[in-house]
Amino acid sequence: MAREFKHDVLDLIKTRWSPRAFSPEAVPKEDLLALCEAARYAPSCFNEQPWRFVLATSPDELANLQSILVESNLVWAKAAPALLLILAKKTFTSTGKDNYWHMFDSGTAWGYLSLEAERRGLVTHGMGGFSKKKAQDLYSLPDDLIPIAVIAIGKLGQRLELPEKLREREHPGERNSLESLFFIAPDPSTKD
Amino acid sequence: MAREFKHDVLDLIKTRWSPRAFSPEAVPKEDLLALCEAARYAPSCFNEQPWRFVLATSPDELANLQSILVESNLVWAKAAPALLLILAKKTFTSTGKDNYWHMFDSGTAWGYLSLEAERRGLVTHGMGGFSKKKAQDLYSLPDDLIPIAVIAIGKLGQRLELPEKLREREHPGERNSLESLFFIAPDPSTKD
Repeated sequence: MAREFKHDVLDLIKTRWSPRAFSPEAVPKEDLLALCEAARYAPSCFNEQPWRFVLATSPDELANLQSILVESNLVWAKAAPALLLILAKKTFTSTGKDNYWHMFDSGTAWGYLSLEAERRGLVTHGMGGFSKKKAQDLYSLPDDLIPIAVIAIGKLGQRLELPEKLREREHPGERNSLESLFFIAPDPSTKD
Repeated sequence: MAREFKHDVLDLIKTRWSPRAFSPEAVPKEDLLALCEAARYAPSCFNEQPWRFVLATSPDELANLQSILVESNLVWAKAAPALLLILAKKTFTSTGKDNYWHMFDSGTAWGYLSLEAERRGLVTHGMGGFSKKKAQDLYSLPDDLIPIAVIAIGKLGQRLELPEKLREREHPGERNSLESLFFIAPDPSTKD
């Protein structure tokens, strides 16, 4: 199941993956702030920076964010010492108009965050499996802010501490072929 | 206008910005493929990998993608030797159901691509200013695939070759404060 890289890319991209085995060891606050700092410098449309974060590290805050997860995520994510809810602001602050790129730009910020985590020896796992309604209620979110994903952050834990059925999934995910990502345009390998 | 980093982050994140001055010098094909390879290894919900790319490097392909840009982007982006249209697939391939994260995950892929470009000494500039309708018509896009952004890719050009009014904007963009990104949760700096 080894990943195949036909083209050399940044080591952090090669080694990053999304484990479910988290060590309960606390993550230094400085690391978590640096992760958000990395996200902060992502590019965005009109430099709107539509991403927002709710960072949970205390037992109470973790319990809050854990309470919105679906059971299949909670079973492993409850071990993570930090959870981060990523939200996006749907409108441009200067005009109030819809920002078509609010989700896209927030995803870019999450990408930067994930690589900064990898650089710091931390693992991350993004989860879409949570109740958006519960997140909205929990934080009394205004209509303009939508919850997107919950990120588990921590140090890699022991695979053997995962429930058995999750152990076999505990490896870097494969990807579709590079060629299959190109739509309409000819395969670039046949060009010039 | 220097950027301020209160927390140490990946050098590529510190140095990346979005110039408008592009050198017309061609970008080696291997570099462009590696950029897509980096994007390919972004994480995504259920590993759906909803991102799709149309890469343009030949005069005809470039003219096609240039034709969908708004004038204020075309004026500088016409110098870029490569343009990349990023699309997202709105539904999960396995179930056909709506994929809430299609934009978000595609943004993560763009984030990885942007940092791989920086690593290779290339600059990138994402543009939201283009006609989605023209993109749909140009490539006969099915309803399931939506155009998100056009990325200019190349080597940094001469600031003085930009139209005068763009020269003063030719510097790394600033960001909102780290504190302003945290919603509801207390400022993490007060936590331990």
